[in-house]
Amino acid sequence: MINTSDSLEILVQEFSKLPSIGRKTALRISMYLLKRPVEEIEYFSHSLINAKEKIKFCNICCNITEDDVCKICLSEKRNKKQICVVEEPQDVIAIEKTNEYRGVYHVLHGRISPLDGISPNDIRIKELLDRLNSEDLQIDEIILALNPDVEGETTILYLNKLIKPLGIKITRIARGIPIGSELEFADQVTLAKALEGRVSV
Amino acid sequence: MINTSDSLEILVQEFSKLPSIGRKTALRISMYLLKRPVEEIEYFSHSLINAKEKIKFCNICCNITEDDVCKICLSEKRNKKQICVVEEPQDVIAIEKTNEYRGVYHVLHGRISPLDGISPNDIRIKELLDRLNSEDLQIDEIILALNPDVEGETTILYLNKLIKPLGIKITRIARGIPIGSELEFADQVTLAKALEGRVSV
Repeated sequence: MINTSDSLEILVQEFSKLPSIGRKTALRISMYLLKRPVEEIEYFSHSLINAKEKIKFCNICCNITEDDVCKICLSEKRNKKQICVVEEPQDVIAIEKTNEYRGVYHVLHGRISPLDGISPNDIRIKELLDRLNSEDLQIDEIILALNPDVEGETTILYLNKLIKPLGIKITRIARGIPIGSELEFADQVTLAKALEGRVSV
Repeated sequence: MINTSDSLEILVQEFSKLPSIGRKTALRISMYLLKRPVEEIEYFSHSLINAKEKIKFCNICCNITEDDVCKICLSEKRNKKQICVVEEPQDVIAIEKTNEYRGVYHVLHGRISPLDGISPNDIRIKELLDRLNSEDLQIDEIILALNPDVEGETTILYLNKLIKPLGIKITRIARGIPIGSELEFADQVTLAKALEGRVSV
């Protein structure tokens, strides 16, 4: 006899399913919520359903949006000739936070990973190619901002093979030493890539 | 322009309010949920409301339950003459997991903490005293299983002063070196308490 309430047990199990939440944290969160006013719980519960109902993918860039086309693709201020390809909508948020990028995006919703059974057809590569082929304006540059790991590299190689024939300039974001960290603690591969990608001062 | 969806932003904010979840984790959880089938989201949402609606406090021990009296207080197998006083319902679950305790509980729902503005009247001390005074059977022992920190000690001192005049034996759980850890890494206070509480072999 561990829990004295089945409803609590169900709630704890539901929270345990979420990423980065273990059973102990799930219990702590559940107990916290049970102490909150009923209106707050209803609001939380409603915001879940509401987000799931309202959010869909942008017809152009596949980023999350509540309309047919996302705010970034609609914006007059963005350079439509520069497309940054990312794996997930979170990556768009991360890049937007830098306030450095003025182009538009394309969200793949994953990366090629044969080990996890994710093939090129499972992610939004077709949508990207359709976009490159069909758009009236000539694309100047495709920036590949994928995660620098095996799956990211595989996806970059695959995309490169497909896009190169179209004659569009393809770049990838720099791999190197993160700002604020120390050379001596950088791993060999990162350091090698940083040397390789050195720029003139 | 950080988020391209207001519903997502609201959901992220709701998750950020929960203990041990920061904004980044909240975003990760939200994105994970948006990829789940709508039935799963509805079930999760419903389990929140359901738990809040069904869970109340046991009329006897103040532990969480879905009935008037909790399963532990109702059980014929438990020794009603032994009451273990704990701060939170989670502590009952932790003690139940040991499978060592056969008495009943009393949940205070907090501890005395003047700095946080929590006075003896804010926690279930009155309910404990009413219970000790009114029950027909004589209580043999009160075990104080509160957290060994300043607020826990304050609460123990306060309870001791109130319960002592009733002539009931009061004990507290042992403070000492946790199993599996090493003496050399124990802090001074813990080590001092472990020495003080030494038992004959």
